[in-house]
Amino acid sequence: MKYISHKDLTKMTSRYRAQMINSLSGFKSANLVGTCNGDQLNNLAIFSSVVHLGSSPALVGFITRPDSVERHTLENIKRTQRYTINQVNESFWRKAHQTSARYEANECEFMKTGLTAEYVDKINAPFVKESSLKYALILKEIIPIELNGTLLVIGEITDIFCAEHAVKADGYIDLEALNTITITGLDSYHTSNRLSRVSYAKPDTLLSNLSIDGKT
Amino acid sequence: MKYISHKDLTKMTSRYRAQMINSLSGFKSANLVGTCNGDQLNNLAIFSSVVHLGSSPALVGFITRPDSVERHTLENIKRTQRYTINQVNESFWRKAHQTSARYEANECEFMKTGLTAEYVDKINAPFVKESSLKYALILKEIIPIELNGTLLVIGEITDIFCAEHAVKADGYIDLEALNTITITGLDSYHTSNRLSRVSYAKPDTLLSNLSIDGKT
Repeated sequence: MKYISHKDLTKMTSRYRAQMINSLSGFKSANLVGTCNGDQLNNLAIFSSVVHLGSSPALVGFITRPDSVERHTLENIKRTQRYTINQVNESFWRKAHQTSARYEANECEFMKTGLTAEYVDKINAPFVKESSLKYALILKEIIPIELNGTLLVIGEITDIFCAEHAVKADGYIDLEALNTITITGLDSYHTSNRLSRVSYAKPDTLLSNLSIDGKT
Repeated sequence: MKYISHKDLTKMTSRYRAQMINSLSGFKSANLVGTCNGDQLNNLAIFSSVVHLGSSPALVGFITRPDSVERHTLENIKRTQRYTINQVNESFWRKAHQTSARYEANECEFMKTGLTAEYVDKINAPFVKESSLKYALILKEIIPIELNGTLLVIGEITDIFCAEHAVKADGYIDLEALNTITITGLDSYHTSNRLSRVSYAKPDTLLSNLSIDGKT
């Protein structure tokens, strides 16, 4: 085992440390956040920090910095209170990564990367047509994390669109059937292979494998 | 595409909704949080909400509920200010899932699941011996999310242990080489296949693939 002390961390170059620390949390979600500036200019940015917060109400969060390339996303969300989250799949993961380039505020990442904006009545934020699992949210709260100046942006899910075949009998969505990809570190993209679904854990009871539909 | 409205969400059974909403954020990290109650009784609990917050300082967060089976974890962290995060790999993912059973406060998940507690000098929280990438943290802040009564627990990384062969030249850690697994929904476990590492995105520049060491 390699041991890295707190002192070692402080001596690393910031790029090396960023690569290493970004690897520690494990596999990350890959999502495009779609917003509009309220004046017909769309923005699209990849986030690897989208995290489930609760099912009832249906709340999802993501972490952003106020001063990063993602700031257009944040400004638009503050202005319109609306955004979409679009899972990245194997068919457009390179285009999704490309949205992290430092485009100007007046440049549209859809245009620049070749992804397709899709509109749904009464939702003033663009979806990504190429995504097979996507949803609209209403901003509920932005919580500042003063330790490092980041923000936790929390939204409530209002409208979900998902490829029909991936929705299973018990509500589980088969992300593998959608070719949803996952991220490690800052720049590595992966597909997945299911080991199994397993039963709800109970003390002194052996786990059993479940079918994809959640049946024993 | 299947469309699910906000109204549809409110009509679902809570189990169906939990399965569905837990699928929406995408792939999740799989980590065991190790704590001690300060009186030599260890606790170990699986979390799928561990999220990277920043590299400098090295901050990691996770979401917990005050009233769930994870409450022993929270109580212990509040008491000792210390905890460990241990990535789950393919060799013990079933034991890791089993830690989510509702054991009593005086029962030790290490004993109950057959995982091995490992101690490091001056760190009063147990590591999981079977994990190939693990680190100790000091509690920095617990931020309440009042929208649903959950908490964001934030710690600073102090000591990292990682299998030597997985640490690459530029600091990236190859989670695939460690057989780290990832979670979808509430109960599905997956291994991964790397598509590629890719270069830092710049406007009007084509992405290039990187080697596992981060070289073009």
